[in-house]
Amino acid sequence: MGNIITGEKEFFKGLGQVKFEGLESDNPLAFRWYDENRVVAGKTMKEHFKFAGAYWHSFVGNGSDPFGGATHIFPWDAKADPIERAKDKMDAAFEFFTKMNLPYYCFHDVDVVDYGDNVAENEHRLQTLVEYAKEKQAKSGVKLLWGTANLFSHKRYMNGASTNPDFHVLTHGAAQVKCALDATIALGGENYTFWGGREGYMTLLNTNMKREQEHFAKFLHAAKDYARKNGFKGSFFIEPKPAEPTKHQYDFDAATVFGFLQKYDLLNDFSLNLEVNHATLAGHTFQHELQVAVDNGLLGSIDANRGDMQNGWDTDQFPNDINELTESMLIILEGGGIKYGGVNFDAKIRRNSTDPADLFYAHVGGMDIFARALITADNILQKSDYKKVREERYASFDSGKGKEFEEGKLSLEDLRNYAAENGEPATISGKQEYLENLINRYI
Amino acid sequence: MGNIITGEKEFFKGLGQVKFEGLESDNPLAFRWYDENRVVAGKTMKEHFKFAGAYWHSFVGNGSDPFGGATHIFPWDAKADPIERAKDKMDAAFEFFTKMNLPYYCFHDVDVVDYGDNVAENEHRLQTLVEYAKEKQAKSGVKLLWGTANLFSHKRYMNGASTNPDFHVLTHGAAQVKCALDATIALGGENYTFWGGREGYMTLLNTNMKREQEHFAKFLHAAKDYARKNGFKGSFFIEPKPAEPTKHQYDFDAATVFGFLQKYDLLNDFSLNLEVNHATLAGHTFQHELQVAVDNGLLGSIDANRGDMQNGWDTDQFPNDINELTESMLIILEGGGIKYGGVNFDAKIRRNSTDPADLFYAHVGGMDIFARALITADNILQKSDYKKVREERYASFDSGKGKEFEEGKLSLEDLRNYAAENGEPATISGKQEYLENLINRYI
Amino acid sequence: MGNIITGEKEFFKGLGQVKFEGLESDNPLAFRWYDENRVVAGKTMKEHFKFAGAYWHSFVGNGSDPFGGATHIFPWDAKADPIERAKDKMDAAFEFFTKMNLPYYCFHDVDVVDYGDNVAENEHRLQTLVEYAKEKQAKSGVKLLWGTANLFSHKRYMNGASTNPDFHVLTHGAAQVKCALDATIALGGENYTFWGGREGYMTLLNTNMKREQEHFAKFLHAAKDYARKNGFKGSFFIEPKPAEPTKHQYDFDAATVFGFLQKYDLLNDFSLNLEVNHATLAGHTFQHELQVAVDNGLLGSIDANRGDMQNGWDTDQFPNDINELTESMLIILEGGGIKYGGVNFDAKIRRNSTDPADLFYAHVGGMDIFARALITADNILQKSDYKKVREERYASFDSGKGKEFEEGKLSLEDLRNYAAENGEPATISGKQEYLENLINRYI
Amino acid sequence: MGNIITGEKEFFKGLGQVKFEGLESDNPLAFRWYDENRVVAGKTMKEHFKFAGAYWHSFVGNGSDPFGGATHIFPWDAKADPIERAKDKMDAAFEFFTKMNLPYYCFHDVDVVDYGDNVAENEHRLQTLVEYAKEKQAKSGVKLLWGTANLFSHKRYMNGASTNPDFHVLTHGAAQVKCALDATIALGGENYTFWGGREGYMTLLNTNMKREQEHFAKFLHAAKDYARKNGFKGSFFIEPKPAEPTKHQYDFDAATVFGFLQKYDLLNDFSLNLEVNHATLAGHTFQHELQVAVDNGLLGSIDANRGDMQNGWDTDQFPNDINELTESMLIILEGGGIKYGGVNFDAKIRRNSTDPADLFYAHVGGMDIFARALITADNILQKSDYKKVREERYASFDSGKGKEFEEGKLSLEDLRNYAAENGEPATISGKQEYLENLINRYI
Repeated sequence: MGNIITGEKEFFKGLGQVKFEGLESDNPLAFRWYDENRVVAGKTMKEHFKFAGAYWHSFVGNGSDPFGGATHIFPWDAKADPIERAKDKMDAAFEFFTKMNLPYYCFHDVDVVDYGDNVAENEHRLQTLVEYAKEKQAKSGVKLLWGTANLFSHKRYMNGASTNPDFHVLTHGAAQVKCALDATIALGGENYTFWGGREGYMTLLNTNMKREQEHFAKFLHAAKDYARKNGFKGSFFIEPKPAEPTKHQYDFDAATVFGFLQKYDLLNDFSLNLEVNHATLAGHTFQHELQVAVDNGLLGSIDANRGDMQNGWDTDQFPNDINELTESMLIILEGGGIKYGGVNFDAKIRRNSTDPADLFYAHVGGMDIFARALITADNILQKSDYKKVREERYASFDSGKGKEFEEGKLSLEDLRNYAAENGEPATISGKQEYLENLINRYI
Repeated sequence: MGNIITGEKEFFKGLGQVKFEGLESDNPLAFRWYDENRVVAGKTMKEHFKFAGAYWHSFVGNGSDPFGGATHIFPWDAKADPIERAKDKMDAAFEFFTKMNLPYYCFHDVDVVDYGDNVAENEHRLQTLVEYAKEKQAKSGVKLLWGTANLFSHKRYMNGASTNPDFHVLTHGAAQVKCALDATIALGGENYTFWGGREGYMTLLNTNMKREQEHFAKFLHAAKDYARKNGFKGSFFIEPKPAEPTKHQYDFDAATVFGFLQKYDLLNDFSLNLEVNHATLAGHTFQHELQVAVDNGLLGSIDANRGDMQNGWDTDQFPNDINELTESMLIILEGGGIKYGGVNFDAKIRRNSTDPADLFYAHVGGMDIFARALITADNILQKSDYKKVREERYASFDSGKGKEFEEGKLSLEDLRNYAAENGEPATISGKQEYLENLINRYI
Repeated sequence: MGNIITGEKEFFKGLGQVKFEGLESDNPLAFRWYDENRVVAGKTMKEHFKFAGAYWHSFVGNGSDPFGGATHIFPWDAKADPIERAKDKMDAAFEFFTKMNLPYYCFHDVDVVDYGDNVAENEHRLQTLVEYAKEKQAKSGVKLLWGTANLFSHKRYMNGASTNPDFHVLTHGAAQVKCALDATIALGGENYTFWGGREGYMTLLNTNMKREQEHFAKFLHAAKDYARKNGFKGSFFIEPKPAEPTKHQYDFDAATVFGFLQKYDLLNDFSLNLEVNHATLAGHTFQHELQVAVDNGLLGSIDANRGDMQNGWDTDQFPNDINELTESMLIILEGGGIKYGGVNFDAKIRRNSTDPADLFYAHVGGMDIFARALITADNILQKSDYKKVREERYASFDSGKGKEFEEGKLSLEDLRNYAAENGEPATISGKQEYLENLINRYI
Repeated sequence: MGNIITGEKEFFKGLGQVKFEGLESDNPLAFRWYDENRVVAGKTMKEHFKFAGAYWHSFVGNGSDPFGGATHIFPWDAKADPIERAKDKMDAAFEFFTKMNLPYYCFHDVDVVDYGDNVAENEHRLQTLVEYAKEKQAKSGVKLLWGTANLFSHKRYMNGASTNPDFHVLTHGAAQVKCALDATIALGGENYTFWGGREGYMTLLNTNMKREQEHFAKFLHAAKDYARKNGFKGSFFIEPKPAEPTKHQYDFDAATVFGFLQKYDLLNDFSLNLEVNHATLAGHTFQHELQVAVDNGLLGSIDANRGDMQNGWDTDQFPNDINELTESMLIILEGGGIKYGGVNFDAKIRRNSTDPADLFYAHVGGMDIFARALITADNILQKSDYKKVREERYASFDSGKGKEFEEGKLSLEDLRNYAAENGEPATISGKQEYLENLINRYI
């Protein structure tokens, strides 16, 4: 990839470039599996994944949680002036991206620079940092996978942004989105994301759900029209999550968003940004959410992380489950890959992971486990009978009456008569244990 | 209602007609709230609810669970001949419906009479019992709320019915549906239900989800076309459930089914049969599922029961939570009532509720808590400021710029400019505790 | 109760004393059920409940959550000087307690006054406020139900306090506990609570669980010895919670703490402070946790709130479920009441409940639902056959061979012989639906 | 191991002996990792694991679930005579154990032979089969890891067995336990297990929990006394599970059982049989339950399987998660191994895994993943700094004041003074991501 950016400040001093050293490496700061130029299934790993660093978790999130304050004390947060502070943060971010060999990054508007309550002043701040980011991108070769606006942290959004019962609040959401779209376009951002953390309800007792969802759709249309008018060619992502911080979030899961996009005529421009931990909070495997997206042509991008199955909130831990990721890569590879975006590390190191190196360990582990999963999945598809077993299961629909059924040529009576004439069907094993072993054989 | 049916056998001897005795009644076999002729919100209670007895839980389910066999030993199961046994069961069922004052009932094909593996013989059996049921209905005045076919218990459906990878199995599902539709039509059944307990997957590793869902849609179209051709005017219900017995069921929840019905052009004929316990298993309140259905014109019918929030499977207990039901009745009343069906007691007495009277207690409690919830909800809507509080929350969209936004007249720039010009919005309380107290004040 | 305290500042202006106005009251700021002097089951309501206001949720917590900053902007937080600010907060707190008619309150050290990093300075600050609180208590008659030290918010506790792998951190926990015990004793606090929010682990990979738990026990012994030496007569409470903020908290639930107290010889001085939402997060009903505590003589106190069954974290909402609370009051009444403490409102108004009145509504609703549950439970115990049904279920152990078994007089062979001689037992219904209806009949 | 047993019938025809073929093997019926004689950490794999086949899941369970009947149609179930049928089943079982290379097996009384309602006749049946089993064991070398009595399937146990409110039912439980103990002793069974699937409650409303638990303890004492008197030297296992089929099971988890065993003086004779899926249903990782057991000297045996994190019931799937098992083997190895029992496959092939080979695939996969986890864990302990990182975390307690604290020499004042004198502690990272990567590096 491009050039490492470290300045005089060098925020991650002592931590150098992370490189591929191979399976036998003992170095916890080296890749054993991820080699950006290695070709798997016809593409380089870099092309497969488009790994992105997440500005918020890595450079803004400070280890605080509902029961305690900051534990990560960042040197880039020292300066009093918001613009200078934001530039330090961006220096740190690009130093990390380049040392970590991350080809992309993602941000919310307020990650990049602190916002106040003045619309014009906020716009000015973000524009200033956009100019700074342009230079950084040019020097490093790091690109913007997607931008987004944070419409959930400010207290004005406590009842939602585009679904707020107060029109006035909605307009502030629009102001932020407009500015974030301008920034994304200016920086050559490849996509734009909507995560509606407060778009939902705390109680149905005070909520007109139908009206709120109509407002949401109107808002998305307005945003899309604006961006297209200004030359934006990328995809708009909706990121599903069932709850948290709201009791119920309207973008509950992939299937729910699919229903919404159909209803409000948004299927052509929008796709999904799926997150592992959001899937499990919704009662799904990540694999399931991927399959729903693939089947509806909506697999826009993914947020890499993992949940804790014993804890009922979004833990956003770095991925490390080889079984889960291998099965996920099978779906992605068979589905033709990630359609528009890439793999964004929407993951955070633990509150008590307070060494600067911890951020590196976390990303090394995350990228490596994805790379290993890709190689494993490709081997399964190339070398095993995995695909064949599934294809043969559905063979009865490939010809004869089964095919006619698929073509819509058989009535209920036709089907009934087939059953009556052909007696009881044979019992055919689903071979689940065989297939699960097969996966493990290739890990 | 109609006439009580007890024959020589009288299966529930010693248990007489359940009647309204009012609030002060000490009789555990009397209604305190449910009075079928009492008018609430412009309709009698009987019209509001259309309570239905569920053939399967009350006359077939025998208390067995995955860890133990039958505990409910039914006198109507004694005879060896399947037709005679089925008639005894129907006698018991109608005795119960009439003593219990239930105006409706619901069944699966195999609840009514045992099926073997021969399509024609099964059809003959069901037709025989349909004739018997016609007489029973005529004598008692009890009506069929909906019929359905059980496409999940027979071993041939272990990999699904309409979504089975084997076309041959699918045709058996079609044969059963055809016959159950014929029965429903013959008995004047008001609706027809699809619950796809095995329509889903055990593992994605062996599953072509897209193809299975396309088959499912084709199958529903064939069934609908057949029924319409044969004069059926009612609604077809899809009953969502997220899982169990399958790992994942395609009709996960109301929003998922809405997306499916849109995609496959089934919105005109299909609506939803929502169940309390299925809602909670999907991570929703029942109220949420109702609201989703109401907002999309899909509230077809409901299955009354409740789940156990500490147990992760379908416990199907009789309803008893006054808070949950009052909030549910608020949504139903504001949404214009249940559109096509009624309230079916898809609930079972516990494995260790082995007295014949237990079935009566359970239904008395269930009907009473619904009646109480209806009265409470109506009082809230009539006497409190519940509706007003919510309407005022959205007042900013009723005129001015907010209204223009709803009419699609404002661009993203317009919205941004409004925010810039009008500064920071006021902070407006959601008043959740006030509203929750208000509900409790009327209980 | 005592005197209402409002000063010049009067933080809750316009909100007056909350009083009992009875069932027909329309006033959302009046009690309909709670009348402190009403005698139920031989004690006044005030004695039954000992309702306490929670300093942290009502006067410190500002509506922030992991996804957004403060929404509750408190006038008592305006001053720059920490002591002056703390006095304003205490003025607000006592104004609220007295207007709300709360006879008790509870606090953590750092709720009362902000702490810095200097042990001696922190001690000085708390002592200063203790003097101020003494005056407040004397004027108002409001008493301290329990005190506690916050050993989870400061970053030094990120790996635990008494279970921290670093002895140095543990000593800071001890310093805080010593000072909080001194304050509790000085204010006549009736009990002292330990909630170990960080006493647990984030991953077992870096944890010596056995050693940590031994440290925890040693720490509790040291605290108890110190308090007893200084004249403290009250109970020490352990408050169970399964997780959050840690992945796993050692005080998982009542049964776990019971095992721990036995193992480390702490049963004589410690009891349990049970919280509704912690029970449900642990996979239990609140009733279950109460019963475990009662059966082991450990029901020390309770934290009143409720969880959201669809959200997997501690929502700490105000109680409003009449079924849950009636069943809970049955256990408390039959168990002889709350042994040492009372009912502390460890509940918070929602992030978007931003009117000063919301705090009043919340407490009115909470106190009222408890009062209603008490009256209902007492009626059930006095007027229904609820107790009799249960006693009769176990009658076979009250005499004869069953009694001999309870007395330990029968061997396994004796029992086997009884079975062989007496054949198959009768089937006896558990009557669950009957009993559930009975509860609802009295609500 | 011993000799393969196949008779004339050979129930698993075409399926031969499963052997170790090594990593490169393509044979789905061969081990790639499990080699019974390979020495790891000083013991052979056979000694480490003592793998046992579970009679119930593999030879009794027929694929039925709450929504459908049998799908596994067993040839050994064909005969009408219960004794002959039982012998066929035992032939099939030993054929499988020996072909599968399983050195142990486990059973419930009613798995071995069907029981009726006559105590003496049941005893006679089991004794008959015990004689048959003795021969089978002698011929094959397969041994009995543990026996148990099924006190949950018969309808008489619907309200519990040893905790049944009816003394008469309890005595039937005692009769079964006596007979199962006799059988276990006669067969040289190494341990005896209690799983109390119905020992709990369906509703607290009808339950005297304290009295039931006292009965449970008395019952266990009687069983233990009888077995010891008759020469049984093994451990008695309690197998925790939080719920299912009961709403709440008294043996909720390891910590709960530990508290119970302490209270009722059963610690010397009883230990725990831990199951993966029971751990996750209780809100724990399996690793957590193992650690609780190890720390209290209670790790008696384990039931190998896995749960489905998206489904809230006991799915009992075959193990396949390498991360979960590696972390589990770390705890077992560091804890000194499984104390009394071994690894019992309390796992079932899916309802739709209907090929005879599926049972073989399942066990091959399960044994292999355990073997791989053992090798991986041993490598981590031998080659990496895993242990060192943890030991160093607690070094402050190995000397100086920390050591004095561990020795109980420091008072609360001493601790407070240490804090005051030594100022704010350093911030020390928990290094979670580093350690998680380390695990993955060795997989």
